[in-house]
Amino acid sequence: MNGDLSSLQVQDLGEQKLLQILQRFCPAEIIGDDAAVLSTLPEQSLVVTTDVLIDNVHFSEVTTSGKDVGWRSAAANLSDLAAMGAYPLGITVGLGLPGTLRVSWVEQLYEGMTACLQQYKTPIVGGDVVRSPVITIAITAFGQADPLRLIRRDKAKIGDVIVVTGVHGAASAGLELLLHPESAFPLSNGDRDALIKAHQRPQPRLDVLPILFSIFNSPTAPLSPLPISGMDSSDGLADAVVQICHASGVGAVVERTQIPLPTTFDGWLTNEQALFYALYGGEDFELVLCLPKEPAHALVQQLGKGAAVIGTVTDESTVLLRDQKGEYPDQVLTLNRGFQHFS
Amino acid sequence: MNGDLSSLQVQDLGEQKLLQILQRFCPAEIIGDDAAVLSTLPEQSLVVTTDVLIDNVHFSEVTTSGKDVGWRSAAANLSDLAAMGAYPLGITVGLGLPGTLRVSWVEQLYEGMTACLQQYKTPIVGGDVVRSPVITIAITAFGQADPLRLIRRDKAKIGDVIVVTGVHGAASAGLELLLHPESAFPLSNGDRDALIKAHQRPQPRLDVLPILFSIFNSPTAPLSPLPISGMDSSDGLADAVVQICHASGVGAVVERTQIPLPTTFDGWLTNEQALFYALYGGEDFELVLCLPKEPAHALVQQLGKGAAVIGTVTDESTVLLRDQKGEYPDQVLTLNRGFQHFS
Repeated sequence: MNGDLSSLQVQDLGEQKLLQILQRFCPAEIIGDDAAVLSTLPEQSLVVTTDVLIDNVHFSEVTTSGKDVGWRSAAANLSDLAAMGAYPLGITVGLGLPGTLRVSWVEQLYEGMTACLQQYKTPIVGGDVVRSPVITIAITAFGQADPLRLIRRDKAKIGDVIVVTGVHGAASAGLELLLHPESAFPLSNGDRDALIKAHQRPQPRLDVLPILFSIFNSPTAPLSPLPISGMDSSDGLADAVVQICHASGVGAVVERTQIPLPTTFDGWLTNEQALFYALYGGEDFELVLCLPKEPAHALVQQLGKGAAVIGTVTDESTVLLRDQKGEYPDQVLTLNRGFQHFS
Repeated sequence: MNGDLSSLQVQDLGEQKLLQILQRFCPAEIIGDDAAVLSTLPEQSLVVTTDVLIDNVHFSEVTTSGKDVGWRSAAANLSDLAAMGAYPLGITVGLGLPGTLRVSWVEQLYEGMTACLQQYKTPIVGGDVVRSPVITIAITAFGQADPLRLIRRDKAKIGDVIVVTGVHGAASAGLELLLHPESAFPLSNGDRDALIKAHQRPQPRLDVLPILFSIFNSPTAPLSPLPISGMDSSDGLADAVVQICHASGVGAVVERTQIPLPTTFDGWLTNEQALFYALYGGEDFELVLCLPKEPAHALVQQLGKGAAVIGTVTDESTVLLRDQKGEYPDQVLTLNRGFQHFS
């Protein structure tokens, strides 16, 4: 890459580099979290997050029902709010639609979105619909959070333990089953359908917040910021741990055998396949949290259902995947995967 | 159009019809304004508005600089907030970008946005960037408003007068000059540039709000809702008056000779051309307000620079364009133009 910026193309850069360029135009304090926080409103912070989904990039209108696309896009945005410690207030939906698109697909899209949102009494409060050669879905979700309960990425401390709120790998295995039905052998139909449902109907973990907060406090507001950091695992578990550590200037050791996997993986996938889905598959929309040991174990106990302590925050500069049993050598986890959107 | 909804295409419907279908999924109370209002936050209402812009639909990357697209997209969203009586808190920007797009164009886009936003100390607080075959810009702006100072569309009352906060037609005439430079004759270069600037650098009328509110109250909060309704003229002056009247269940008479036009139109355009730009051109981003006569005249006097009373709200079912001088017969203004996005 030479110095001629005017001839540079987006595809020359990759997402991270492009964001760096664009972030110069944003206030420094708002960069690097799942959602934006505005503190101008009294008592509660306004938390805002936005996502854009494009046909044939993030989904395929041909193979995915509007309902599934709608549910998943709403879930992804609510998950970003949950990852910030925020309760949703509403979303806006901007749509770009080709003239030839079936109206029923758009209706299903909204049905899927509202089905997911209604679980959390969250309204669609506005939108825009325009003509576009490609189906485009731009969702902005906003929520509110107690400023002392905001969950940031950059507060992980050495000695914290790392908690995941549920199993990982199910959503991406479900997608694989949709794309390659023949790979289901020897899964039972019930197990196959459960994995596909994990992909089609992921649940944002807003239910974790009251449990998490109750461990630290009485229901009233805390007096100082809670010692929690984290984000969601929408881009994969490895990505989440590495992003948190990078933002916090710490390292971590993740114990290979502690990563909770779907029981349906047993006897279907090899250890390597299972771990690949869990670490890099993405879209499980669980929370990945770093917090002191005692409340972490209390949280895991209260959550049940796949929640687990998977590792420890260290003073190293890397995130290591370690095998307690010593069968596999340590591996360094990196951000390399999942950031090639423009290639 | 037969009853087979599953085969219906978006292009079969037009925007209004499609929105009707989609609005079934939204709470009834939030439909029909420039921006969404949430009352869950204490004291101030949160006001949210969203716009999606597509290359070759709303702008052309080939003929329009990123800076102009950025400024205008930010201005359009801030104008929606101003039209609600809300002061901006921030915007989010979702971008879909083709891999082959020049990075410099994207930088210019952000430069244009921030140049407009900085006038109002409004930050870009978040965003998303994804790959798309077509440049897509999804902006969500949110602001706050005193609930008693919210400006709705549906509160126009018979006897109110109609105020515009500035001249109309300049922005669309400027666009015409960009598309057909030869049409400038016999405009001076200075006049031509002023009209082009009206298109490229429109100003959201947030400056109107403190003046408007001060006419009704002391700077402290009002005790009852202000008797103001309105919206912005982004889709043209005719559209704004008709929309307000339709939402309020009233009619109006607009006096042809009272519509403020750019002085540069004199000796360049015919009366018909000038009126066409003013009524249907759009993107002037002025406010169109209905309010009682006395405060209306106070507002016009304090605003100066093209602000004018252009008509009266009536108990008729139509919006009539009338010529005081009697040279032209009454015309009924309709929404017909500007709603053919999917045709």
